[in-house]
Amino acid sequence: MFAPVYLDHNASTPPDPEVLEAMLPYLSGQFGNASSRHEYGRAARWAIDEARSQVAAAVGAHASEVVFASGGSEANNLLIKGAAACLKPGLLAVSAIEHPCVIKPAEQLCKRGWTLEKLAVDANGRVDINNFAMIMTRKPKIVSVMLANNETGVLQDLEPLAEHARMAGAWFHTDAVQAVGKLAVDFRRLNAAGVHALTLSAHKIGGPKGAAALVLDKRVELEPLIAGGGQERGLRSGTENVAAIVGFGVACTLAAERQAKLAKPLLEMRRRLEAGLIALGATLFGQAAERLPNTVYFSFPELDGETLVGHLDRAGYAVASGAACSSANPEPSHVLRAMGVDPELARGAVRISLGAGNRKEHVAGFLETLRATVAGLRRLTAMTA
Amino acid sequence: MFAPVYLDHNASTPPDPEVLEAMLPYLSGQFGNASSRHEYGRAARWAIDEARSQVAAAVGAHASEVVFASGGSEANNLLIKGAAACLKPGLLAVSAIEHPCVIKPAEQLCKRGWTLEKLAVDANGRVDINNFAMIMTRKPKIVSVMLANNETGVLQDLEPLAEHARMAGAWFHTDAVQAVGKLAVDFRRLNAAGVHALTLSAHKIGGPKGAAALVLDKRVELEPLIAGGGQERGLRSGTENVAAIVGFGVACTLAAERQAKLAKPLLEMRRRLEAGLIALGATLFGQAAERLPNTVYFSFPELDGETLVGHLDRAGYAVASGAACSSANPEPSHVLRAMGVDPELARGAVRISLGAGNRKEHVAGFLETLRATVAGLRRLTAMTA
Repeated sequence: MFAPVYLDHNASTPPDPEVLEAMLPYLSGQFGNASSRHEYGRAARWAIDEARSQVAAAVGAHASEVVFASGGSEANNLLIKGAAACLKPGLLAVSAIEHPCVIKPAEQLCKRGWTLEKLAVDANGRVDINNFAMIMTRKPKIVSVMLANNETGVLQDLEPLAEHARMAGAWFHTDAVQAVGKLAVDFRRLNAAGVHALTLSAHKIGGPKGAAALVLDKRVELEPLIAGGGQERGLRSGTENVAAIVGFGVACTLAAERQAKLAKPLLEMRRRLEAGLIALGATLFGQAAERLPNTVYFSFPELDGETLVGHLDRAGYAVASGAACSSANPEPSHVLRAMGVDPELARGAVRISLGAGNRKEHVAGFLETLRATVAGLRRLTAMTA
Repeated sequence: MFAPVYLDHNASTPPDPEVLEAMLPYLSGQFGNASSRHEYGRAARWAIDEARSQVAAAVGAHASEVVFASGGSEANNLLIKGAAACLKPGLLAVSAIEHPCVIKPAEQLCKRGWTLEKLAVDANGRVDINNFAMIMTRKPKIVSVMLANNETGVLQDLEPLAEHARMAGAWFHTDAVQAVGKLAVDFRRLNAAGVHALTLSAHKIGGPKGAAALVLDKRVELEPLIAGGGQERGLRSGTENVAAIVGFGVACTLAAERQAKLAKPLLEMRRRLEAGLIALGATLFGQAAERLPNTVYFSFPELDGETLVGHLDRAGYAVASGAACSSANPEPSHVLRAMGVDPELARGAVRISLGAGNRKEHVAGFLETLRATVAGLRRLTAMTA
């Protein structure tokens, strides 16, 4: 396989070799069903218990608060729809920049008598606290605001938001899929501030696809999305994906160990990229907000993002256009629309998301390739204009 | 790890080495998100497409009818709850011996205005056709009857049942998780008879945990359980578990190739086991019904199943007691209760499920160990009585 330099870590990350090594026994000899009451089953159960402790430790939670799911989308759907099923229909509030796997289940609830309010963000992608406080006076029952946005990398200051939500009596959920591994995330502290549930996902932090967790304050009552054998305290039935859960546990431990060390080199590379992009005439999104150290989201006003991504791919750099992580969708990003970005500019959006494997040379090479690519596309645009 | 002889293939199966080999690239260098529009993403998308064709071919379906999910429990919940969400509440009928991941979601629907009818089975675990036909006159909207039972291995003759359900205008679903790989399963033929949806799971057929499929007649409208990025034609959002899906595809191809070859040796071993068990004084369940070639379900009236399974495990044989595949549940099997089995006898239930790796020597060794174990427990029982 032709292997471009990978600059798309918010979409998925290469599994760490230690993660794969830890998974392999559970993909071969230790294949038991964790519900079986024999040696094979006990080995699987023990491995899941161990992974649960590792996941909990990485985000400052207790193992008993970790509910495993097959992915971040499932965990987010479980929280939104599962909590709603245990409440009388009422108001539900999610930020306008949430991932579709929070917005879509919230929209599904509108068919079941719920009212959905999308929380506004400012031009830099931060939730507008005044608007938020006003909506909280209407006593929503469920509120979901992500910790870091997958497209822009913009962070939300959750504690004041959770404080308002708590006064309203709402369950407060945060999708921390993009934050874990890139920031220190402490569920205990967030929980004290009024955050009741948090989602994280293995494949965004050097783990495998197929495992994620909903970290859940036990006061929150949930109806399972997947009912059956009663696994995960009855909140998520189905034979556990032992290998993926084991890999998730190891990835969490590694991510927690490495996060502080990685932040500085990532931020340095991000700054280099930003300086280079500005020099080439790009517009950066969320520039005035605090952002993840690994994410840069930009646009060249006169160029189409998809086209640019295609050229960069062929030139050896894997980056994302508009909203990655979701399937073919020609609409400009809903995140940028919520930020009030001009639709033409939004259509040019390209995301770079760095990871542990990236080096300064990748950044330099990328900027050089981008310069040449943009110049070529500008000439083409000028000729066809 | 101490490795007992594995006789619990209905709970989970050892992944085939070819399956693991096919998965490995997608757990290392080919880690892309299938929604990404660069080389890594395209490689993942191509691999999923290939696996979809393999799964479809193994069960006589078209690739476009295959919806991937994280496991059989999810696929069954998706069909039951997803179809119900697109219909006005009405009558729902599932057999009394379904796996909990069919019965529980059906019960959840009762809170949403649905009425649930559990279809009776006879003393051998076969759906009672007269009772079935009578319930169909009440026009259920969704019917689910499994192809092969996970505990008893008893097969249902679906075509006459589907014919009645079709006259009632119901969507007819079958959980074929235990049938695929052990019987020839042909969705095209079942679909012609009125079966609209079929579930199969990777880890029951030599594939990995974390992948399953709902094979779906496109006339069935479903609301997704997991909404978000719109993957799987909008029916199941979330980053695809590429490695597990690839392993599932290969496992399906291997299972389809081997099924006919395996049936005879499995059946011979099953018959040897049955003869040996009867000689030791065991009662066999579902004995007069057509059953899977790999499954034997029995009880010694005076012995507790859990205790026997524990002793056999320590003596080097991994088998299941009562209802495996579900978490700790001290109740006697609902399958045996539905068959009218005496609760005392049901509490003694032990299941042996053979697989490709088993040999005649395993059967002989197991019977010898069982004889000694039963004799020992009987002495113990006699002493304490």
